[in-house]
Amino acid sequence: MTVKKLEWIEAPTKKEKPDPNELIFGRMFTDHMFTMHYTEENGWHQPQVRPYEKISLDPASMIFHYGQSVFEGLKAYRSADNEILLFRPEENMKRMNRSNERMSIPSFNEEEMLEYIKQLIEIEKDWVPGEPGTSLYIRPFIIGTEPNLGVHPSHSYQLFVILSPVGSYYPEGINPVKIKVEKEYTRAAQGGTGMAKTGGNYSAGYNAQEKASNSGHAQVLWLDAVEKKYVEEVGSMNIFFKINGEVITPSLSGSILEGVTRKSIIELLQSWGVPVTERKITIDEVIESHREGKLEEAFGAGTAAVVSPIGAFTIDEAQYQVQDGETGELTKALYDTLTGIQTGTVKDHFNWVTEV
Amino acid sequence: MTVKKLEWIEAPTKKEKPDPNELIFGRMFTDHMFTMHYTEENGWHQPQVRPYEKISLDPASMIFHYGQSVFEGLKAYRSADNEILLFRPEENMKRMNRSNERMSIPSFNEEEMLEYIKQLIEIEKDWVPGEPGTSLYIRPFIIGTEPNLGVHPSHSYQLFVILSPVGSYYPEGINPVKIKVEKEYTRAAQGGTGMAKTGGNYSAGYNAQEKASNSGHAQVLWLDAVEKKYVEEVGSMNIFFKINGEVITPSLSGSILEGVTRKSIIELLQSWGVPVTERKITIDEVIESHREGKLEEAFGAGTAAVVSPIGAFTIDEAQYQVQDGETGELTKALYDTLTGIQTGTVKDHFNWVTEV
Repeated sequence: MTVKKLEWIEAPTKKEKPDPNELIFGRMFTDHMFTMHYTEENGWHQPQVRPYEKISLDPASMIFHYGQSVFEGLKAYRSADNEILLFRPEENMKRMNRSNERMSIPSFNEEEMLEYIKQLIEIEKDWVPGEPGTSLYIRPFIIGTEPNLGVHPSHSYQLFVILSPVGSYYPEGINPVKIKVEKEYTRAAQGGTGMAKTGGNYSAGYNAQEKASNSGHAQVLWLDAVEKKYVEEVGSMNIFFKINGEVITPSLSGSILEGVTRKSIIELLQSWGVPVTERKITIDEVIESHREGKLEEAFGAGTAAVVSPIGAFTIDEAQYQVQDGETGELTKALYDTLTGIQTGTVKDHFNWVTEV
Repeated sequence: MTVKKLEWIEAPTKKEKPDPNELIFGRMFTDHMFTMHYTEENGWHQPQVRPYEKISLDPASMIFHYGQSVFEGLKAYRSADNEILLFRPEENMKRMNRSNERMSIPSFNEEEMLEYIKQLIEIEKDWVPGEPGTSLYIRPFIIGTEPNLGVHPSHSYQLFVILSPVGSYYPEGINPVKIKVEKEYTRAAQGGTGMAKTGGNYSAGYNAQEKASNSGHAQVLWLDAVEKKYVEEVGSMNIFFKINGEVITPSLSGSILEGVTRKSIIELLQSWGVPVTERKITIDEVIESHREGKLEEAFGAGTAAVVSPIGAFTIDEAQYQVQDGETGELTKALYDTLTGIQTGTVKDHFNWVTEV
């Protein structure tokens, strides 16, 4: 399809680019952002690139009161050949529309939206860092803007895309983390919003996350809200276990986010001939497999860290170490292959990568 | 306690007051609002009344991404003697701090905060309508404002109080509504955020609310997220059943909002010698009592409608009528007494009302 060139307003002054070795996730933003508006009369309209600056909203705007919002997260990488690459961005566009549906937000044209994001990145191309492990993080989000305290979907919305150069998630190499199995708080229930990337899912986890941090854990491992026995996610990542040669990840239950990295790992493992299964898995099964010496590897998967090895998990007072706290061989291979494909150093047999 | 007079900036122009017969809930706001800021260095500081106007936020502000927010809702009434009355406002302040705790937002001094709200209302006193059924709706809310895409509690917040003159919830008298028992979507689970007044709880219900509206229902009746059999809330109100002379309301389970109207109804019924019980109640028990002719009344309770009679409820395809679709005697007595106390026409034996 052809999408017309975006109207854009150039920022009058440009920021100094940060030192690529000192990038902190999500703290610095580029010179421009993309915005688009929705009204019932005009649908999604007025797509525009304009200077990154504060936005002005009525204090009665629905986002401040009833949390009607969705977001996405993806990355642009600079290849060795100086191309700018996106990893399966169409998956993020699809998921954003699925989140929209759950949150009663009007959907957008996915192809058009992706084209707008590419045009924004083209304008900001000098902001895509090239050092190993760095990338330009892309954050599209939509908020309900109608000034109205009635409890019902907003009649107007704004969509934004902001960009943030981010450093390596593992400045000193990929490092196994310790996680805590959460038994009090829950993240999402069947029929809730767990499958949507909406704000409320994330702040709902802060209490548990703080409790985990205070006891020296990097992340929370969430169990299902009903029986508190099925493994769901780790922090804001999907989770994988390698048990007796087979890789197992919780099936999409409606309360689990359908991760793009998750999907890619499953496809990659299948292409490698490694047995991989999506099914319900209880925390008791994980412990049992550990006791029998069959829990070979465990890792989280998500856009930010790509693959995050789990070195140990704590349940109540008991701690279980995985792979002697070292990164497993398969975990490492997945990380290397995925980041290799993303940055163009590993051949992309899957057609996952799109050039901007 | 003594709280110093607030610093305030007067609005340069004043809006015209609306026709009290044409007020729509939460659509018009007064000339001024209250604001206060939080930073780690200064705590809650800079309390101020200033003109109601748009607020300016960085697009990376956490409220837009991870939904860290809490709010409250209460009303100021004009009595026949021209006093301005608040109904149990200290309960709202306490609940807001309980919501803060769940959402990892720093708590505020409740007495001080109530005093600020009173000073704001004093400034806006001409906006409190006096016609029967009207009031000035008070909406305090807090949002995370740090510009940071990291998934963790914000390090800075803004607190606002905005005011909206609202009309009678029942312009043509108190009217029974039809509600739909929701079996697919869920509102909140144990360990989730159901007991907190946070944005995400409300937009999470839009899908179900729209489905209910489309089939001619005013509200959704929520069941528990685990077994989908215990009654939780109706729309954004607490629910009460009168069965065989006894009033029953779901006990506070952690997933149910602790309503100020709910609490007041329980205390009022106790003072009248009407048996009232807080306990788990299944939807099957409600149907069974209906079949046996023992379901005498049903109603929702919340700040907006005060008391909202339920005339019928639908489960799957079956519809059950309560009180021949009329407002029950006890429901009406509760509505009249509560609104009477709130507006000063019924003697306040409980000391619930505070003069501004």
